[in-house]
Amino acid sequence: MAETDSLQEFLVTAVDAAKRAGEVIRQGFYQTKHVEHKGVVDLVTETDKACEDLIFNHLKQHYPEHKLIGEETTAACGITELTDEPTWIVDPLDGTTNFVHGFPFVCVSIGLTIGKVPTVGVVYNPIMDELFTGIRGKGAFLNGTPIKVSSQTELVKSLLATEVGTKRDRSTVDATTNRINSLLFKVRSLRMSGSCALNLCGIACGRLDLFYELGYGGPWDVAGGAVIVEEAGGLVYDPSGKDFDITSQRVAASNPHLKDAFTEALGQSK
Amino acid sequence: MAETDSLQEFLVTAVDAAKRAGEVIRQGFYQTKHVEHKGVVDLVTETDKACEDLIFNHLKQHYPEHKLIGEETTAACGITELTDEPTWIVDPLDGTTNFVHGFPFVCVSIGLTIGKVPTVGVVYNPIMDELFTGIRGKGAFLNGTPIKVSSQTELVKSLLATEVGTKRDRSTVDATTNRINSLLFKVRSLRMSGSCALNLCGIACGRLDLFYELGYGGPWDVAGGAVIVEEAGGLVYDPSGKDFDITSQRVAASNPHLKDAFTEALGQSK
Repeated sequence: MAETDSLQEFLVTAVDAAKRAGEVIRQGFYQTKHVEHKGVVDLVTETDKACEDLIFNHLKQHYPEHKLIGEETTAACGITELTDEPTWIVDPLDGTTNFVHGFPFVCVSIGLTIGKVPTVGVVYNPIMDELFTGIRGKGAFLNGTPIKVSSQTELVKSLLATEVGTKRDRSTVDATTNRINSLLFKVRSLRMSGSCALNLCGIACGRLDLFYELGYGGPWDVAGGAVIVEEAGGLVYDPSGKDFDITSQRVAASNPHLKDAFTEALGQSK
Repeated sequence: MAETDSLQEFLVTAVDAAKRAGEVIRQGFYQTKHVEHKGVVDLVTETDKACEDLIFNHLKQHYPEHKLIGEETTAACGITELTDEPTWIVDPLDGTTNFVHGFPFVCVSIGLTIGKVPTVGVVYNPIMDELFTGIRGKGAFLNGTPIKVSSQTELVKSLLATEVGTKRDRSTVDATTNRINSLLFKVRSLRMSGSCALNLCGIACGRLDLFYELGYGGPWDVAGGAVIVEEAGGLVYDPSGKDFDITSQRVAASNPHLKDAFTEALGQSK
């Protein structure tokens, strides 16, 4: 009981941080069109950094004993190893390219792992004002309303999401498009939103049936979304079908019905 | 002056029709999760048909002398040839797959051609409450605020949108993924929203820099968006770089800076 209470309190704190950072993102989002290109690069860097500082300070103030891992801090100071300690894993601005271009799929992603297990998750899209939340064992919500994964059982009727990532060497791009080619014969259609965390939330609320991504930035892209998917009745797994490893930069997600057919299709697409 | 007045009046009538149809779409959009699969198919068909009837009746009542071309009527009764007469070209529900899955890129698209030239355009996304409008010579707007295309001049910094369509024969799918493979080496990233009309509006408001699609449904997918792109300072053209033909099921759009580099890249991607 005490533990559940504290998880609920952790969520409230994380939502508060995400909403404050979301306000900073929203302001920047509508400015990118009005600054020079060099100014846009600075605006992204500043927004990213300001949001991570804001979230880290908020979390440190409430939970000085908790560990923190953030995309920006990792980029600046190197990788912090994930331990069993309660650890907040933060992407202050997921969907950076979308932010630059004004494409509305941007979000703050905050996840808390305990014993390396994603336990509390918050993903907030301040442009569409959609707040996805989840607590292990306590369900998943969109703006306070319970959500669940789709009930789709057939791959051929499923809507798939993936991303093309940022690597542009021949072997990565060929592998990416070969995989898409193979999957197009097996699913209904394909979407690319540009945000890993929002793709996971799309699975959680049933807008998407299937999602995979290989080679994304780091655990901050998935730490918030993973628990939201699972609490919405979905599964998060390695694209091979093995257990999900939050540090592996490989993720797949779907409802339980589709997992076997999806991992088989992904296996055949290599 | 009299002509401009009547174009403005045509726009007001089309916006009225789009908003009414949008309300029907919005209601259906949130129901798809709560009906059986067979029920979903019926819901799509009914929504599509109800919206086209609603829009056609509204336009007929105001302009009994105008021609009408709609996706649903064409599917049921065959192709109506486009003439020089004032002709309303209507997609009552663009993004049908998104509608079924609850993915928020769905819209009503209404375009008026005069002398086969797209002259008035309305594209309304009732889920995100975004109304895009344009009148030839009078600018383009999003919810009443003027919009313009991006100022991007470099392909490598451009955000590209396309779609994988619905054809799943080997030659179409291979051509689709080969084109994407080739383009990924030249642009920043790729988005797929599932709505041709909303991709055009994405170009118009600068969220996207480049869009092409081959083999989409018909002129109803582009008739509303084309004038909105052009009035936002953009260009709509055949992916080969030749003039756009609204009946050809081939479209590309961008700002004027990017056209030559984009059509060259598309030419090399075949």
